This record gives sequence, structure tokens and C-alpha cells, in this order.
Amino acid sequence: MSSQEQVLEVARRARQAAAELAPLPRAVKDAALHAIADALVAGSARIVEANAADVARAREAGISEYMIDRLSLTDERIAAIAAAVRHVASLPDPVGESVRGYTLPNGLELRQVRVPLGVVGIIYEGRPNVTVDAAALTLKSGNAVLLRGSSSAYDSNTALVEVMRAALADAGGVPADAIQLVPGRDRDSVKHLMRARGLVDVLIPRGGASLINSVVEESTVPVIETGTGNCHVYVDAAADLDMAVDILVNAKTQRPSVCNAAETVLVHRDIAGEFLPRALRALGEKGVTVHGDAAVRAHAGEGATVVEATEEDWGTEYLSLDLAAAVVDSLDDAVAHIRRYGSAHTEAIVTTSQSAARRFTALVDSAAVMVNASTRFTDGEEFGFGAEIGISTQKLHARGPMGLPELTSTKYIVTGEGQLRGA
Amino acid sequence: MSSQEQVLEVARRARQAAAELAPLPRAVKDAALHAIADALVAGSARIVEANAADVARAREAGISEYMIDRLSLTDERIAAIAAAVRHVASLPDPVGESVRGYTLPNGLELRQVRVPLGVVGIIYEGRPNVTVDAAALTLKSGNAVLLRGSSSAYDSNTALVEVMRAALADAGGVPADAIQLVPGRDRDSVKHLMRARGLVDVLIPRGGASLINSVVEESTVPVIETGTGNCHVYVDAAADLDMAVDILVNAKTQRPSVCNAAETVLVHRDIAGEFLPRALRALGEKGVTVHGDAAVRAHAGEGATVVEATEEDWGTEYLSLDLAAAVVDSLDDAVAHIRRYGSAHTEAIVTTSQSAARRFTALVDSAAVMVNASTRFTDGEEFGFGAEIGISTQKLHARGPMGLPELTSTKYIVTGEGQLRGA
Repeated sequence: MSSQEQVLEVARRARQAAAELAPLPRAVKDAALHAIADALVAGSARIVEANAADVARAREAGISEYMIDRLSLTDERIAAIAAAVRHVASLPDPVGESVRGYTLPNGLELRQVRVPLGVVGIIYEGRPNVTVDAAALTLKSGNAVLLRGSSSAYDSNTALVEVMRAALADAGGVPADAIQLVPGRDRDSVKHLMRARGLVDVLIPRGGASLINSVVEESTVPVIETGTGNCHVYVDAAADLDMAVDILVNAKTQRPSVCNAAETVLVHRDIAGEFLPRALRALGEKGVTVHGDAAVRAHAGEGATVVEATEEDWGTEYLSLDLAAAVVDSLDDAVAHIRRYGSAHTEAIVTTSQSAARRFTALVDSAAVMVNASTRFTDGEEFGFGAEIGISTQKLHARGPMGLPELTSTKYIVTGEGQLRGA
Repeated sequence: MSSQEQVLEVARRARQAAAELAPLPRAVKDAALHAIADALVAGSARIVEANAADVARAREAGISEYMIDRLSLTDERIAAIAAAVRHVASLPDPVGESVRGYTLPNGLELRQVRVPLGVVGIIYEGRPNVTVDAAALTLKSGNAVLLRGSSSAYDSNTALVEVMRAALADAGGVPADAIQLVPGRDRDSVKHLMRARGLVDVLIPRGGASLINSVVEESTVPVIETGTGNCHVYVDAAADLDMAVDILVNAKTQRPSVCNAAETVLVHRDIAGEFLPRALRALGEKGVTVHGDAAVRAHAGEGATVVEATEEDWGTEYLSLDLAAAVVDSLDDAVAHIRRYGSAHTEAIVTTSQSAARRFTALVDSAAVMVNASTRFTDGEEFGFGAEIGISTQKLHARGPMGLPELTSTKYIVTGEGQLRGA
């Protein structure tokens, strides 16, 4: 079979599995998830062995230790992955939830209920735990999944998917084809997946901006963009400056490599003289390099690392201990800067002013707007969703952290007793 | 300016207008809608004059009388269009609606609120009333609109948009650039609109399957597909056959040219002998040509017009007084037929059996499933939404009739008092 025919074949099998999976009650899906968790623990040695081959290849290729750590699986990590699957089983089933319902004037009873999306394709990088996370979340929400992970984790992902499929086959109830790896290590398989319109209902790319842009550009399957975060912290003229320093340091340094970490701070001119020396010192203590405009650089003192910001800095998602910093003349200027350079993920304002908070939250057009809180809170778990498949930075379908309900569509069920339409 | 630069220019102006429009309170938007309604009535003569040029061109081109009727505007029709705009003003404002909200364990107050999508592009055919309908609905939901109607209605649309923009400029409050026509009569302007990613937030093509497919294929802007309806009526073994005849005739003939009209009837073998002669006669009286399989044709009697169905008939959206008809062995066979040939718009079951109704509604994967009611009820007005921008046949974002809330996205607003993330 050609590469394309192989991809279409798994997509067709996924479509059939999705039809069988959609009407299954929660108990069957949860039992399957527990069977998967048990099988992962039981198959741990086999998975670790497959993973060792990926890790060895990565070392030969001179991959950084950081990336190798992300790639590596151990018995402990597999136990944690299995525990996450059991946690997904404990979450409410979104399928069948009645979103709205009422009786129409002509007596028709209308209900809008959640149904699975169908076949969900996930394109992702590095970490093999995503393979299991994504499979568990899509299964719980009644969807069949096509997994296309990084070729660097191909052996690990193959082993994980084999273990999960065997668990489904043993447990019965959920068809094994509900979880499939997209065959092929090269880019062609991604391309075929993106053109499998009619077989695949949605693609969720998880990864860097270039992956996401190429999927958006080439896909005829509907896409949910995730994960690019150029997040801003704006320190208002009226702000508790201790709180502002704490929030900024937390947002930048608590975990710099993730999409909800802050990448730019905007400081109102009125408090710049008081705020910046303290903030730059606190950031310096954490090892942050600040890329500042002239007004910021004027406040660089001992313990601070401040370099000159270029135009490019304002649009950069560093994902490192770097931070762009500018002084602005007003809240509206901060909003304009964010609109121009931001990625509409998460922005925070630190202010004691009710009207400033109100204006900022009204004018900033991002998935999440924080008032006096760290940008790091934009996260499915933190938002109380129990789990997260990704953070959508688009406006259609889902925006912000996506939990189980965001992996569903809806269907109208209208019940009558022979109603006909007159006009 | 090049054709592309012209389109990008109106898109940029729409983007700016969208930012100004988003935070406006309902009263300002409603006042603008009433100003538009008044201006349409006041400008009726000018609009009818512009329309006459389009109609004359259509006549010269030998367009059918049916299409010319759809294209034509009169004082009465413009008054009705203005009344529809006032009706939109009377509907609740979806923007600002709180979709969910709770306090997190750490004290953060989380709210998910509806916000406008931003810039909405509508690509549509024939009827110039869509120009005003779409502008009113997008304005009410806080969106700027880019209108790309049929070139056959270009003069009418130009006049309508000029009148609406002048009304906005006079009324103040809402920027006139919230309503713009996409410049250019040729296909190039559609192409540029489809590639205006980052400036246009969503494209809604309204029209035939070929228009929609070409937009889906070429657009990098997210698309909401609307309107292709190959709708089925399934008459179950246990059915009130009088009701079944009435529903089928209504679904097929009450308005055959629309997407929620029935295109195929599937009849359970057990009642085919009793049902089909009556149904075929009743359909014959309404002038319907039935494209039947062998089992159906065996029941063709006096007063019925029945021809042989080809494979192509099962997938055809006739939009005319034609109907495909087949006998099936079971409800599951009916579902399998629908999954194979349907467009996932609307399917109906006629049955007295609770378990059959339950199984059909669970297994049929369409935007709307009717039990003992005509397919013609799938409609925003009929569903109680007050208005409709189209009927989505995709699963992402919105499925089924789209009212004002479906023209919005959401934003999370999270309010704290200095919360930091620990892990």
C-alpha cells in the first residue's frame, strides 16, 4: 500500500470504531480506561525497552539532555501515566449532556445534546506520555483517535499503542481501532492525515508555531490551533507593587518553557520609577535576562541583566529565562501593544483599580485575561476541568484550555407527534 | 491597488472596527440597527433603482425567472428586510453572557464570557436580502462583517451597503467599517478573502456544495460549512402510516428548494406494502417524481410517478420535486444508508416505538434528528433562536442552525488577589 493508502486505511478503521464508540455508556468506557491503566503497568518493562531504543537514537543524534529527559520513560513515569488514565476515568462523561432543551410553541420538544466529534487526529512532538493522555481523553469523550507523534518517539509510541490496543481487545466493549498510531515516520503521513477530510473530523496540532502553521496552511480537515503563547503582564499605574513583582516573577520563572509563561512585561510610566528597579532586581536573582526598551534600561541597577530590546523581541515566545519589557503611557497603550504583538493566549493586569481591571478585561482579546493573578493559571487542571488536551488560541469551537466537553460536538434531537411545517 | 491589496485593506479596516465594536453595550448596537432599518426604508427608491440594473443584466443573460425573482427587490421587500433588522435589534445580546463561572479552590474567580468572533466574512449567492440579514446579525453579535455576495447582485449589494454605512455614520457609536462589501466582482476577491488569515476570524460560505467545497479546500481562514442537506425520512416498521405520509409529503414538498427538505425516504420492509402505495400516490398528487429501487417500483400504482433510481440518486440533493426512495430491512440498515450517503444535516424517523426512536437518535450522526416531525423544522426561527445566519453541517464550533450565540467566541476572565502558581 502507498503511504497515503495506509493513512486512509487507518482513518477508515477509526471512522468505523468511532461509530461503535459513540453510543457506548460511560461504564464501558471507564472499564476500558482502567484496563489500559492496568496494561500499561503490566507492560512497563516492554515499554521501557522500546523507549530505550528511541533514547539511544536520540543520544547518537546529539539531542540535548533536556529533550532526552522529555523523551525518557521509566517504570515510575509509566505508573504516573497509568494513574493519569485512571483519573480521566473518574471524570464526568461529557457525551449525552443536555446543553439546552425546551418545548417549542408547536409542542416539539427540542434538546441539544453533546455527542463525540468522531475521529480526532493529534499531531504532537517529543513526549510519549502525550500518546496515552490523548488516547485516554479522546476515548472518554467517545472519539476514535489517530496519533501522530514525533518520529523520535516512534518505538515508544508503537509500544504504548500496542499495549493500549491489546488492553481494549482483552477488555471488550470498546473497539481496539479507537486508538491507532498513524503509520509512517516521515512527513508524508502528516500530509495525508491533513487531507483526509470526510474521514477525520478534527486535527489538533500540539507543538511549536511552525508545526501549527504548516497544519493550518495545508489541512482541509478542520484544525484547532493550540499552544503558542506570547503572554503579557501589565503593571498598572494603580498597583500593589509587591504583588506585581511576585506575579511577574512567578509568571516568568515558575516554568519558563510552557505556553502560559509570561514573555513581556508592560509597565505604566507613572510607577515605572518605583517598580522597575525592584522588578529588575527580583528577575535578575532568578537569572532572567530582560530585553528592555530605553525607558526600562534607564532603571537597570545592580543585580539586573538588561539588554536592548529589538522590534523582534516584542513578538517572541522565548520559552526561556528571557523577558521583553517596555514602559507604556497608558492602559490603552498596553492594550494596543498586546493586540499588535500578542498571540491572544493569556494576558494579566496587576491593578488596584476596578475601572482599570474592567477596561483591560473588556479590551484585551485573548483566550484568558487575568486580574491580579499569574498567567501560569491558564491550564485545564488549574481551571478545574480535571484534564486538558491542549490550550486553544483560536476563536472557533474552543478557546483557552480544552477539557473533555471541548472534545465533543452537539446534536439536536427534536421529538414530536406528527408536526408539519406550515410556512 | 492590486485586487489583493484592496481586499486586505477592507479586512484591516474591519479588524479596527471590530476592536471598537466588541465592547459596545447593547443599547448602542440596537440604536444602530434601528438607524439602518430607517435608512433602508428611506433609501428604498435608490436601492430599487440599483437593483433594476442587476435584474436587467440577469434578463439579458437569460437567467431563469425563479432566479430573477430571488434577485429582485421592491419597496415591499425592502420594508420586510427593514422589519427583520428591527427584529434582530429586539433579540438578546449574546456578548457578555456568562457561560460558566465558579470560584477555584485557591480563591481565583473564573468566568467564561461570550465575546464577538471579530471579523466575519460571508460568501453567498443570489439574494440581496442576505446582505442586510448578515450585516444585522453580525453587528448585533459585536462582529465586523465582510460581505461577498454574488456578482449578479453587485449593484444591489453596493447600494444596500452604502445605505447601511451611511446610517451608521449618521447614528454614531458603531464605526461604519463594521459593515463592508468586499471589493471586486471576480473570483480573485474571494480567493484573497480566504487567505486573509490573521485579519479575518471566520468565513461562512452560504450556497451550493461547489462553493462550499472550494472555500473549504482553499481557505486558511477557519470556515463554518453551511447548508448542504441530503435529508432522509425513515418510516419504521412500527409507524402511524397516516402520520408518515403527512410528514414525508411536508418534508419533500412544502418548500423543495431548501436544505432541510427531504431528498430520500427509507421504508422498512415490513410496512412497505401498506405504506408505499399510499405514499407514492400522495407524492404523485404533489407532482413529485420518485426515484425508487426495485422494491419501491413494485408498488408504483395509479397517480404515482416512479422512475428507476441509480446509485447517484442516493447522494443527490435535488432541491426539486424529486425524491429517492428505498426499502430497507431494518432500522440499522436505514442508519447505515444514511451514514453512507447523507450530508449529516437532518434525518427523521416516523415510529411509534420508543426503543426505535432511541436507537435512531443515538446512531444517526447528523446535526438534527427528528422523531415524528418534518425535517423542515431544522431552522433557527423554528428552533426558537429568533434568527439564523445559516445551518452548520460541520461538527466544530456550531452544528445545526446558527443563531446569535453561534456568532460569538468566549474569553476566560480570572480575578484574584495576587495568586501565584506553585506547581
